[in-house]
Amino acid sequence: MTDVRFSISATDGAARSGEITLPRGVIRTPAFMPVGTAATVKAMLPQSVRETGADVLLGNTYHLMLRPGAERIAKLGGLHTFMGWERPILTDSGGFQVMSLAGLRKISEEGVRFQSHIDGAREFLTPERAMEIQRLLGSDIQMVLDECPAYPAGEAEIEKSLALSMRWARRSRAAFGDQPGHACFGIVQGGVYPHLRQRSVHELTAIGFDGYALGGLAVGEAQAQMFDVLEATTPHMPVDRPRYLMGVGKPDDIVGAVLRGVDMFDCVLPTRSGRNGQAFTRNGPLNLRNAAHAEDLGPLDPDCACPACRGFSRAYLHHVVKAGEIIAAMLLSWHNLTYYQDLMAGLRAAIAGGTADAFAAGVAAAYAGARARSGEKG
Amino acid sequence: MTDVRFSISATDGAARSGEITLPRGVIRTPAFMPVGTAATVKAMLPQSVRETGADVLLGNTYHLMLRPGAERIAKLGGLHTFMGWERPILTDSGGFQVMSLAGLRKISEEGVRFQSHIDGAREFLTPERAMEIQRLLGSDIQMVLDECPAYPAGEAEIEKSLALSMRWARRSRAAFGDQPGHACFGIVQGGVYPHLRQRSVHELTAIGFDGYALGGLAVGEAQAQMFDVLEATTPHMPVDRPRYLMGVGKPDDIVGAVLRGVDMFDCVLPTRSGRNGQAFTRNGPLNLRNAAHAEDLGPLDPDCACPACRGFSRAYLHHVVKAGEIIAAMLLSWHNLTYYQDLMAGLRAAIAGGTADAFAAGVAAAYAGARARSGEKG
Repeated sequence: MTDVRFSISATDGAARSGEITLPRGVIRTPAFMPVGTAATVKAMLPQSVRETGADVLLGNTYHLMLRPGAERIAKLGGLHTFMGWERPILTDSGGFQVMSLAGLRKISEEGVRFQSHIDGAREFLTPERAMEIQRLLGSDIQMVLDECPAYPAGEAEIEKSLALSMRWARRSRAAFGDQPGHACFGIVQGGVYPHLRQRSVHELTAIGFDGYALGGLAVGEAQAQMFDVLEATTPHMPVDRPRYLMGVGKPDDIVGAVLRGVDMFDCVLPTRSGRNGQAFTRNGPLNLRNAAHAEDLGPLDPDCACPACRGFSRAYLHHVVKAGEIIAAMLLSWHNLTYYQDLMAGLRAAIAGGTADAFAAGVAAAYAGARARSGEKG
Repeated sequence: MTDVRFSISATDGAARSGEITLPRGVIRTPAFMPVGTAATVKAMLPQSVRETGADVLLGNTYHLMLRPGAERIAKLGGLHTFMGWERPILTDSGGFQVMSLAGLRKISEEGVRFQSHIDGAREFLTPERAMEIQRLLGSDIQMVLDECPAYPAGEAEIEKSLALSMRWARRSRAAFGDQPGHACFGIVQGGVYPHLRQRSVHELTAIGFDGYALGGLAVGEAQAQMFDVLEATTPHMPVDRPRYLMGVGKPDDIVGAVLRGVDMFDCVLPTRSGRNGQAFTRNGPLNLRNAAHAEDLGPLDPDCACPACRGFSRAYLHHVVKAGEIIAAMLLSWHNLTYYQDLMAGLRAAIAGGTADAFAAGVAAAYAGARARSGEKG
């Protein structure tokens, strides 16, 4: 339906490696999308984000519609020019953050009424408005509006929510219309219930999208349960369309999902952890606040080529984290985003080489059970 | 007394332009030193600070002695390696910040007792300890410990304080000893009283220093009064030694002081203002919070080559300032430091070309009366 192409160059079991080609650039998959919530990947310049290896950013419709506003961004030339990132941008629909951040939410068939968490202003988001906002932003990959039920929820509640999400998906797809060079993704819902997930896939593919996301995961369920849902769902999804697991996650979540056929990810974890003094390394997570680092002249991760690892010791990073200096957020965000992009590059190479299982096992050994936080968005 | 050289290549009236040559690099004068309080120029990477044109940084003895500690920095290889800045560093003696930040201060002939503003720990700073700390840090230009009386103060109080500062200067100089490749600067005190300033110069030159700073200015007095003090003091200072006006200041303060024979400056204003959404431009100060910038596609300063001006609009900067995003502090600090270094380069060129008065008048026209804050340190 568009001139967006997805080509798979290698597979290893259910894992796939390939490229999504958009007018603004190629996205190498499996891909990790840094989150640029309010038109900035926090504590990073756009050029630095690119230097970590990122091909695509995620922008948050909810934040941008409230401030500075979609019409204003359109007037200023679109989100890419506004924030200085000329490569692809995927935008969410705003639905998830309305549910998690906004006040006084009221969901109806028509859409969702809520209050801005910034100034209390009353807002109304419908599938049509969500798509209009994403078009005004100039988003390359636009997501349908869906309902995001709180976890845990019973089967009847999930089934009812899914039905609404599927009606909204149809309206979203119609509102997206025909935008050459831009893609529209549907979102598979259905909670932890395989038959509902499969029904969702069936209904979405009947509508027809450029890609299919998995929503409502990483919201509190155990990793094993998330993997079970993926195993029950991805085999039913179109092979020739990218699959995007929203809001995931920790390194071991990502490698496990890639083994189960997922192509795209986004998560605030690398940047949020960076602002909190936590680093991801090839040997697992590190808390730089820990006094053990106070006189450690070694780098954060000897195998990393980012500016934090090339130019500074753990002792320095410990000091600036403890002192609350902005450079701590800058260096640790840069490092963590580099780690995530290196992780994706490692996955792509492992898939091409037929060693995805071994690669994933190595990451899982370093991260399984690590108490780094995940499943948080925006 | 050391192998530190100061050469003057051009003069224009009382203004001088030249170079201070240290083993770690050349400092072009008039020079502006960004403040790297706690081993970081806030919101900047060291390489970015260098890209603005800075030849030398200022480090704060007070902050560094409390956290991470001078002995620890020495153990880790010295301040330059620790913070990733291999060019010259000037350190203050800690005296000013003890007076302005610490708790429970008690000054005696021996030194000053105080409580850390970080954890309340009891500390004791003497002239000998101040110099030992600076030596442990590996500072290229080390400042004597002086007493910094609060402004305003009467003549008798200033005279008594000056006498103590001169005794501390002698002890500081003796403690500095002989450090090839490192310089020791005395600090001229005496408040707003010309005869006390001149007495201070006389006593310090009798001791003999590599350079002479002017302390106790930009502490609340009017600009005209500060300029009067400079005019009454600099003609009595050695011609062949650099003169450093501590903690100054706004652009019009700096150009006025250069016309009166000052060679070096430091101030937190460009970085602190940057974190507060204020920018320095060739047309005067700008407050990016102002709604007038919300849809302005123009750059902050069309004549500036910094990343903020090359890559982003005023509208974007307004947005990220309003949203409290870290990138606002990063971009505006970078821009403001670039503005200050461009200002110094402009002054050096004007002195060489014999147009210092006209250059200074242009800056004063843009900044005189502007309510940007000045006179703040650390």
